[in-house]
Amino acid sequence: MEAIIITIGDELLIGHTVDTNAAFIASALNSIGISVKRKYIISDKKDEISTHVKQALSEVSIVLTTGGLGPTNDDITKKVLCELFNTELVLSEEALMQVKQFLEIRNLPLNKNNLGQAYIPQACTLLTNKYGTAPGMLFKKSESILISMPGVPHEMISLMTDEVLPAIKSLFSLDRIIHKVITVGGIAEAVLAEKLSDWENKLPEYIHLAYLPSPGVIKLRLSVYNSNDNHIHEVEHQANKLYKIIPDNIISMEGLSLTEVLGKILNQKTLTIGTAESCTGGAIASEITSIAGSSDYFKGSVVAYHNSIKENILNVSKSDLETYGAVSKQVAESMAKGIAELLKTDISIAVTGIAGPGGGTSEKPVGTVWIAISIKGKVLSQKYKFGNRRDTNIRRTVNAGILFLINEMKRMK
Amino acid sequence: MEAIIITIGDELLIGHTVDTNAAFIASALNSIGISVKRKYIISDKKDEISTHVKQALSEVSIVLTTGGLGPTNDDITKKVLCELFNTELVLSEEALMQVKQFLEIRNLPLNKNNLGQAYIPQACTLLTNKYGTAPGMLFKKSESILISMPGVPHEMISLMTDEVLPAIKSLFSLDRIIHKVITVGGIAEAVLAEKLSDWENKLPEYIHLAYLPSPGVIKLRLSVYNSNDNHIHEVEHQANKLYKIIPDNIISMEGLSLTEVLGKILNQKTLTIGTAESCTGGAIASEITSIAGSSDYFKGSVVAYHNSIKENILNVSKSDLETYGAVSKQVAESMAKGIAELLKTDISIAVTGIAGPGGGTSEKPVGTVWIAISIKGKVLSQKYKFGNRRDTNIRRTVNAGILFLINEMKRMK
Repeated sequence: MEAIIITIGDELLIGHTVDTNAAFIASALNSIGISVKRKYIISDKKDEISTHVKQALSEVSIVLTTGGLGPTNDDITKKVLCELFNTELVLSEEALMQVKQFLEIRNLPLNKNNLGQAYIPQACTLLTNKYGTAPGMLFKKSESILISMPGVPHEMISLMTDEVLPAIKSLFSLDRIIHKVITVGGIAEAVLAEKLSDWENKLPEYIHLAYLPSPGVIKLRLSVYNSNDNHIHEVEHQANKLYKIIPDNIISMEGLSLTEVLGKILNQKTLTIGTAESCTGGAIASEITSIAGSSDYFKGSVVAYHNSIKENILNVSKSDLETYGAVSKQVAESMAKGIAELLKTDISIAVTGIAGPGGGTSEKPVGTVWIAISIKGKVLSQKYKFGNRRDTNIRRTVNAGILFLINEMKRMK
Repeated sequence: MEAIIITIGDELLIGHTVDTNAAFIASALNSIGISVKRKYIISDKKDEISTHVKQALSEVSIVLTTGGLGPTNDDITKKVLCELFNTELVLSEEALMQVKQFLEIRNLPLNKNNLGQAYIPQACTLLTNKYGTAPGMLFKKSESILISMPGVPHEMISLMTDEVLPAIKSLFSLDRIIHKVITVGGIAEAVLAEKLSDWENKLPEYIHLAYLPSPGVIKLRLSVYNSNDNHIHEVEHQANKLYKIIPDNIISMEGLSLTEVLGKILNQKTLTIGTAESCTGGAIASEITSIAGSSDYFKGSVVAYHNSIKENILNVSKSDLETYGAVSKQVAESMAKGIAELLKTDISIAVTGIAGPGGGTSEKPVGTVWIAISIKGKVLSQKYKFGNRRDTNIRRTVNAGILFLINEMKRMK
């Protein structure tokens, strides 16, 4: 069973907006055994929408569109779908009730624009949008279905979860897809590929391997389409063989992120953590607290951008700052010690570096970062040299800090 | 002049990776007067790549692909391009030198996988990749060109900027596109659309208006394709008319982000800022410091996730915490006061709320947030009610906090 996703909106073609919807939809479809054959990102033009919806319906059983359903005049998807499915817009009492409810709660007026949201193609089934005024719509055409959703991410996510997936499950009998994701760190992609080449060449033909790299972390994915119970065992067997080749680089055999693995370790050992951050500006704390339930182990953080804060709040010695500079082993270690003492945590991560684009010197160029960790009073530190891009340097420092800590805590077992 | 972007990679169809490349490429092309007609996201399969590259080359002058050039076995783009352009892979001395240089600096070995990166289709022009082993490639076919780039974001960005844009400029004579982006805040999309409908209906036909909404902020974009100098004046004239309709909601007439506007105001007034964050976990500090040069005004932050930290470091009174709870006007205001005093900053933002999914009560449900700001000792606060999703609540709190501060500082003028 295959699907095609069509994202509609000029803002995506002009580069003002990153399409995060398509990834969520693909992941949700995969989880119920539907593979995504292709994605189109097209403009708000009638011909583009019409041509690609028709093309997609001729190729696959399920077509999903997002976007072009807003209350403003540049949104024309609904009109085009009416022509395609040979139907017309009618006022839906159900949709009108939803729009009114939505506006009432938020104390917003019913005006011409959002009243228009209650006009729905007669031939479609309505899907309830709990977080906005544009409802989802489901159309049937011979053996295929088309689902149209608004492009606002949280509205689409709620529609997908509560309405679209149940509808698809009830309409089709679905294959099973297995995905086993293994998180690997501290190794370059080419080196990893060489270490794994023998194992990869011996994989059964029905297991597909993919490398999913991001700064400092690579996810390896083993997939079987149209799978049965034997395949599950074979995938686990192959994953175990993989583990034995690179045991020190395995972060998670369940595909967890660095932050999720850290949370699990801290929860298991009932330890608390805090961070002291200079160049990352709070990004490590923000990453740790992006996980629901992180308040069980995360106590807090001090972002010490200015040296006065390193000195006065984290208790870094003035002479260290003057002698070695803010980006140094000594200062990183003092920050790690200082924050653990200040917040009374078992564990801490401290980072100090030059994210760029300014601030580099010949001795300490942009991308130089010192990371220190403190585990129950034991302080360790490491120097890193990243690149020239500010955003990538911050992202890599966040991942390197968490990875450093995870590896040391695993060693302590 | 039009382009089509083709992103190649199973990881994008499975939803493990969000395609940020396509937005960057589109934005870069727009800046030199090329509009993007469409984007395809396709799998690593030979037929898919071949069909879509051919289709794109028949429709537009410029086709750009990313992905499928890595050192691992699942990357087949190069082989497919050889067939399409009727050429073969040969060892390129220039590419080999680049690969060797790249590996030497990083102290990595030359192995079979990255040696393969130096084999390049004979018919193409090499584009230098400064940050990886996979070079960019430029092919010509009658009046059109195809450019193939690796999918790793920072490699693609550097190739696009330093190699691809100059190559396109030298090969084609380009139209000019005008985009004027205006940032608007504190107003719902439907209400905004109604307020602007008269103005919108009177816009000259060649000016295209688009709404680009994100949590709490809407960007309005006025575009003219194939433009001349008169159009620039007309766009500015229309933008001024727009300003007069919603003066209080205008954040930036230059399309700047909230964080960029805040930075400009603080720089102009030579003021310093710090943040005290509970539910956002450092996300406000991280957002402020994502801007290069933010160290001129940002001093630091305390992430006070646990109440002990609110009390001991930010000087929130224990009795307030007990009487009113951590998510309250009193605590938010004390945090704003406490952080400004601790870090000795002129300005502060403090937030405390329930991001969810846990922690809500009937009196203070998930999504309840108090935001306080302190401007030279004057403290103001506001209560917000967001939704149920943790990530959206954090994002909306970040934007609301910065917007609250910007609006108050504008009023102070």
